[in-house]
Amino acid sequence: MTHVISLLVENHQGVLVRIAGLFSGRAYNLESLTVGVTTDPAVSRVTLVCSGDDAVIEQIKKQLNKLVDVIKVIDLTGLKSINRELALVKVQAGPERRAEIIQVADVFRARVIDVGADSISLEVTGSTEKIDDLLSIIGTSAVQEMARSGLVSIERGRKTKKTAKGA
Amino acid sequence: MTHVISLLVENHQGVLVRIAGLFSGRAYNLESLTVGVTTDPAVSRVTLVCSGDDAVIEQIKKQLNKLVDVIKVIDLTGLKSINRELALVKVQAGPERRAEIIQVADVFRARVIDVGADSISLEVTGSTEKIDDLLSIIGTSAVQEMARSGLVSIERGRKTKKTAKGA
Repeated sequence: MTHVISLLVENHQGVLVRIAGLFSGRAYNLESLTVGVTTDPAVSRVTLVCSGDDAVIEQIKKQLNKLVDVIKVIDLTGLKSINRELALVKVQAGPERRAEIIQVADVFRARVIDVGADSISLEVTGSTEKIDDLLSIIGTSAVQEMARSGLVSIERGRKTKKTAKGA
Repeated sequence: MTHVISLLVENHQGVLVRIAGLFSGRAYNLESLTVGVTTDPAVSRVTLVCSGDDAVIEQIKKQLNKLVDVIKVIDLTGLKSINRELALVKVQAGPERRAEIIQVADVFRARVIDVGADSISLEVTGSTEKIDDLLSIIGTSAVQEMARSGLVSIERGRKTKKTAKGA
């Protein structure tokens, strides 16, 4: 089963190495990882997508909690959460295919961000499945270049700011 | 100076540890990092934002090129590129502030993705500066929770698929 784990970490040298090392050393399957700033310059948020059975995930969370630079570990899998990924996709498309690609982009609420002589670049956000669907309709063979951010997630609804540093 | 470096890497165990370790071991300043899949399941794209003087950046690129799992290193800084970041932002906003937040979201082309009793969640994509501007208008004290993806980048216009595996 795939789990989304959100971490608040101190911005110290080497914290990323320790997190990544935890996965590499134990052959846990790390599917994506993003690191972004928060409103506190001393704290970053890391979103991990990893897969494994429940015992493996429990182990991962325990190990993450043990790292000194990790402030909080939240497994968003059981909670109501909002999950989004960003993809920049450059599609091979001469004038004859341009209208079709723009139409597909429109359906997926993707934005056209660049049009070249034989390519169109799209920016799309959504669940991993939505982005995969868009790619399969465009046809992966037509994709010249792609950059995906990996998943970012926040909990839905209830306040978490006050608890964020407490645990 | 801040540089955006895009890497194509083999999906091997430990590649992320080696990349992160390179920054940690040498005290290079790594500002953000994202790892996402590509159309080739064996290859991932890593986007790094790092800062340092030219000699430091040159050193980083050389070290990255030396890693066996790294297929290609592209410094997007001098090139025409499209840079985007995704942010999910949960803003503290009761009914009295809701209209204002939705208006600001509209100006920044952010999407309202959740409305709670005392919060609104926004999804916004754009340059790092655009997202920082949105946050400063909303007021960082009103931000309950935030997850940012870090920068993802692709080269503008010209084809790169054919060269991507060649170098």
